[in-house]
Amino acid sequence: MRAASRGDSISGGGRVAGGPEDKRLLRGARSRQLVLRQAVDTASLDGLDGLSFGKLATDTGLSKAGVQTLFKTKETLQLAALDLAREMFIDAVIRPARAQPQGVQRLRALIEHWINYAETPLFAGGCYRVANMADFDSRPGPVRDALVRDQQDWMSTIARELRRAVDAGDIADLDTDLAAFQIDAVLCSANTALRLGDTDAAHKVRRVVESFLTQPE
Amino acid sequence: MRAASRGDSISGGGRVAGGPEDKRLLRGARSRQLVLRQAVDTASLDGLDGLSFGKLATDTGLSKAGVQTLFKTKETLQLAALDLAREMFIDAVIRPARAQPQGVQRLRALIEHWINYAETPLFAGGCYRVANMADFDSRPGPVRDALVRDQQDWMSTIARELRRAVDAGDIADLDTDLAAFQIDAVLCSANTALRLGDTDAAHKVRRVVESFLTQPE
Repeated sequence: MRAASRGDSISGGGRVAGGPEDKRLLRGARSRQLVLRQAVDTASLDGLDGLSFGKLATDTGLSKAGVQTLFKTKETLQLAALDLAREMFIDAVIRPARAQPQGVQRLRALIEHWINYAETPLFAGGCYRVANMADFDSRPGPVRDALVRDQQDWMSTIARELRRAVDAGDIADLDTDLAAFQIDAVLCSANTALRLGDTDAAHKVRRVVESFLTQPE
Repeated sequence: MRAASRGDSISGGGRVAGGPEDKRLLRGARSRQLVLRQAVDTASLDGLDGLSFGKLATDTGLSKAGVQTLFKTKETLQLAALDLAREMFIDAVIRPARAQPQGVQRLRALIEHWINYAETPLFAGGCYRVANMADFDSRPGPVRDALVRDQQDWMSTIARELRRAVDAGDIADLDTDLAAFQIDAVLCSANTALRLGDTDAAHKVRRVVESFLTQPE
């Protein structure tokens, strides 16, 4: 996980397990996870800009100074929250789909897990990327870079399964990058539609995805 | 314009033109437009949540008390900014397309004007609706209602021209509501892609729209 390389308190040390130093480190790691889980929910609702050390301290019952010590700057906190959100997304959507054969079946599994991820939802305000991309798209910097990387990875995942389906002769040839762009666009809009109470959003997503899975001639 | 019915200072009165009272009202109306134009730009970059009487006063050279008197509450200011953004969107995208015949030609004109609106851009941060929908989709209230109304009006406009094209026998029959949902989704994603410097975004939009305009059998 990228955040662990940013010099936070849990990545250092090599002590023998069980000593007082280990307990301190363990407590730090637990506090960190507690704060980040809250941060991801807050960011999905109010955006990453809505994060503050003070509010996170209140929401988790930790001291503001303690939260500040864990993350140093707001940007470090935002990036660590994005890392956790990305990991949770991979666990909820990408990993379970790997059980399916490559191509059409894995693509359908990815979409079903995505619908579940947006409907349930994993984050209080729905997809973390949709919730934050519009705030950061005009602001160059590491937060925007992380959001763009997540979007590109997701679109590449979709395009790859479409390409495998074409190569296997299961669907008609198509521009897989353009199709992945369209599918991602529809997922983002469906995420918003779900927040607005549109009960037909999942059905729309399935119909759009199926429209790309046509029989080869 | 909806904001004018909300009891702001410029909608009252029926004095004879030219008197001191008229000059005061005119000054109020000008200040109001000045603040709102700034508010729309700020909201397209930092979101409607980023609006504050203090910052708008600094940005326009007016007093904070003056700005506060014009709009009373932040929500009134947000709704008035949305009204202005909607009017500007209609002027930039909807009205010019009316010069084209209904159906395929008007739809293409709407899309070209929309691309221009997102590329130029009319608002500092791109499409005002995309910039704010993700922030408000989980927050019921009049701001969300206004954003949803604008989205539904836009999707209805697209669906209507598609329907006219089908009825005229110019394109093959299709689910016009689903197609409008897909086209709007792609436009929203293209707006973000443009902010991120994707020079291919307009081309993608045109290809997607053309994919719905197939010859009837």
